[in-house]
Amino acid sequence: MSKFINPRVLKGFRDVLPENEIQKNRLINTLENIFRLFGFVPIDTPALEYSEILLGKGGGETEKQIYRFRDHGKRDIALRFDLTVPFARYMASHINELYIPFKRYHIAKVWRGENTQKGRYREFFQCDFDIVGTDTYSSDFEILLLMAESLKSINIPNFKIHISNRNIFNRLLKQLNIEKHSLEILRIVDKIKKIGEQSTKEMLEPFADSTSISKIIDFITPEPVFNDTLTKIAELAGGKESDIERLLDVKLCINELGMDNIFFLDPSITRGLDYYTGIVFETYLTDLPQIGSVCSGGRYNNLTSLYTKMPIPGVGSSIGLDRLIAAINELGLDKNKTAGTKLLILCMDNKYIGYYHKIAGIFREAGIVAEVYPEKVKLGKQFSFAEKKSITFAIICGEDEISKNEVILKDLTTRQSYEGLTVQAALEKVKLVSK
Amino acid sequence: MSKFINPRVLKGFRDVLPENEIQKNRLINTLENIFRLFGFVPIDTPALEYSEILLGKGGGETEKQIYRFRDHGKRDIALRFDLTVPFARYMASHINELYIPFKRYHIAKVWRGENTQKGRYREFFQCDFDIVGTDTYSSDFEILLLMAESLKSINIPNFKIHISNRNIFNRLLKQLNIEKHSLEILRIVDKIKKIGEQSTKEMLEPFADSTSISKIIDFITPEPVFNDTLTKIAELAGGKESDIERLLDVKLCINELGMDNIFFLDPSITRGLDYYTGIVFETYLTDLPQIGSVCSGGRYNNLTSLYTKMPIPGVGSSIGLDRLIAAINELGLDKNKTAGTKLLILCMDNKYIGYYHKIAGIFREAGIVAEVYPEKVKLGKQFSFAEKKSITFAIICGEDEISKNEVILKDLTTRQSYEGLTVQAALEKVKLVSK
Repeated sequence: MSKFINPRVLKGFRDVLPENEIQKNRLINTLENIFRLFGFVPIDTPALEYSEILLGKGGGETEKQIYRFRDHGKRDIALRFDLTVPFARYMASHINELYIPFKRYHIAKVWRGENTQKGRYREFFQCDFDIVGTDTYSSDFEILLLMAESLKSINIPNFKIHISNRNIFNRLLKQLNIEKHSLEILRIVDKIKKIGEQSTKEMLEPFADSTSISKIIDFITPEPVFNDTLTKIAELAGGKESDIERLLDVKLCINELGMDNIFFLDPSITRGLDYYTGIVFETYLTDLPQIGSVCSGGRYNNLTSLYTKMPIPGVGSSIGLDRLIAAINELGLDKNKTAGTKLLILCMDNKYIGYYHKIAGIFREAGIVAEVYPEKVKLGKQFSFAEKKSITFAIICGEDEISKNEVILKDLTTRQSYEGLTVQAALEKVKLVSK
Repeated sequence: MSKFINPRVLKGFRDVLPENEIQKNRLINTLENIFRLFGFVPIDTPALEYSEILLGKGGGETEKQIYRFRDHGKRDIALRFDLTVPFARYMASHINELYIPFKRYHIAKVWRGENTQKGRYREFFQCDFDIVGTDTYSSDFEILLLMAESLKSINIPNFKIHISNRNIFNRLLKQLNIEKHSLEILRIVDKIKKIGEQSTKEMLEPFADSTSISKIIDFITPEPVFNDTLTKIAELAGGKESDIERLLDVKLCINELGMDNIFFLDPSITRGLDYYTGIVFETYLTDLPQIGSVCSGGRYNNLTSLYTKMPIPGVGSSIGLDRLIAAINELGLDKNKTAGTKLLILCMDNKYIGYYHKIAGIFREAGIVAEVYPEKVKLGKQFSFAEKKSITFAIICGEDEISKNEVILKDLTTRQSYEGLTVQAALEKVKLVSK
């Protein structure tokens, strides 16, 4: 038996290497900037909560997947499995300290002990943005607009946001007299893109007769034109009500901003979760449809009803960061993943270490990422370090240079050396080439 | 009994309101920029790990405080209680995918089920930065330099970094023949700033005779001048060895960078944790000494020895973000905590909602945070929203203005209105005033 502890991570969990962490952080920064431009503000909630709070509306799958245990005080607690339920609890707690409408974003880890498979992890980031305290088409549209602007900001070239209204689907089921199975049915319909029409039909058989199944399939099959689809589903659902009006109003905003090519009315979008009450949406990448939706959400007008009698309607969306990063890498959209160090000051003699740090400080003052190699080892080893970290320049400064108050600047990409420079001249050269 | 679930958070856990989250994020961004300027790169590790990995070297207090449980697969797992142990495990796993010296930072949540008291939480952020793979005074100094630059970057005006070398203290205990109690003794000595000299003496009594206690007290009492202290502790510890040399070399770097006024040789600094093997340090704010150390760390050369036979020496430091934020607020150093929205487009008529979003887009293009009020309600309510969110400008655009292709811009701080502007002219005005 080894005397060492195996330094493994848990199945479904991941260490992140620097180049991937840098990429993720840059992505998150870009998204945060867009959220902030729209006046959304960040919040935070605890990773651990009372289980009754997290499970209040979850049930079923959630209960099986949640990391739940007793703490030192025997409290029944659990790790959050999404950011929506904690947000509902947060709003119920803090409504009097905030203002309405309240627009927040939250980018944080969540945990689910589900079966691991390609691209599915037990610990992953969610990136949510929501508008609460208002049930208006303006806020429905604003979330859609922000989804589109977010994806554009990270250079996703081609995507389509599929929208629908959960309420119209519920009305259809009421028409067909099968609304008692609505949760099962919408979960089946939600999977049609993955399983196809035939399997969908078969899976619906326990819940609906063949006429009803035909009507469901007709309902969820979009027409090429937005308004044709809308007319069809209105008819099947028993007429034009406020849910249809809502989609029409949202469509007018879409037209006003010339975003017609981005949005698609797709009644097969129902979302698997039962808390949605209005508009629902998913986003597909044209160049990578098989990856599934990268940004999804909808309107939930009763989410806080577990915690407070004050109704707080909301609409929100969630970006699948891991999936999006996988897509960005698969599409080759992000080529800049270096650590960012521009300059390495080589260690020619340990007695000059203090001076080397001083030189590095002069470069950093000018915003240039600079490092000092921490001890005199063979130059080959120092250059090899520079290469592994993709560092562009080296400063060489030994006894000779010190005595003349000079440095040698070496461009590691061209292998050209510039001798007899003052530190200031070397800085100017690096700045010039770095532009 | 209420039919509602009480929306409470667990004791020792916190919801973060937007203004505090904005402040924390800004602080973290500033620190990350400094870390990156020094060539440090970010990594991430899982929040959950096998308990044997986290507890390998923890023991005692850690074991009592850690959130530990069995997952769905009956694995014995726990939430990380710091970022150092997972980092050691990470290095043992990934040494071959990385380069040496490796400089990383990690800013993330950790969890400890300890007794809550003022300023102590069960969930809090740690902000660690380390250099591993090299046991050199250059890297010891670099960490100290980065500590100083980090605190300067967030405008902390007056602070002192107290340094010592754990090894010299260990030699003293060996001289006194009481090294078998070294862990107990250094934990007592570590608290002298809190409990005072008299209590320290009393607490040492079970472990040392009165001569030894006198020598310990003499050892940990600094002289006003760095080199005098060094001479004294070298003598008490049995002579000048490499641990003394190391402090001298670091001191030369400090002098070279003219940072003499920031560092203070303080042999009472021992750090409570047993993994330190060399230099150790703590940072005190001159204007708020009672808050305790805001940035501490040291050299640990055996940390990965639990997981691998390859020795990976390291030195690192950890910023206490919560404590630092408390200090910043107590010292009144951060006055800018608004949500940042500059412009609110009032809703004069629901039929123009799409147009309002279009106008908002024009302001956002120019980098100005702009929002649309999502429905027509009384103007008083819309203005009151603007006031709560500290918004500077409002755009008023009703039927009249639309017909003339104009808007009214209102400066909400001066209450002045500018009528008959094009959207572009309004934008220019906002840009001008915002500068």
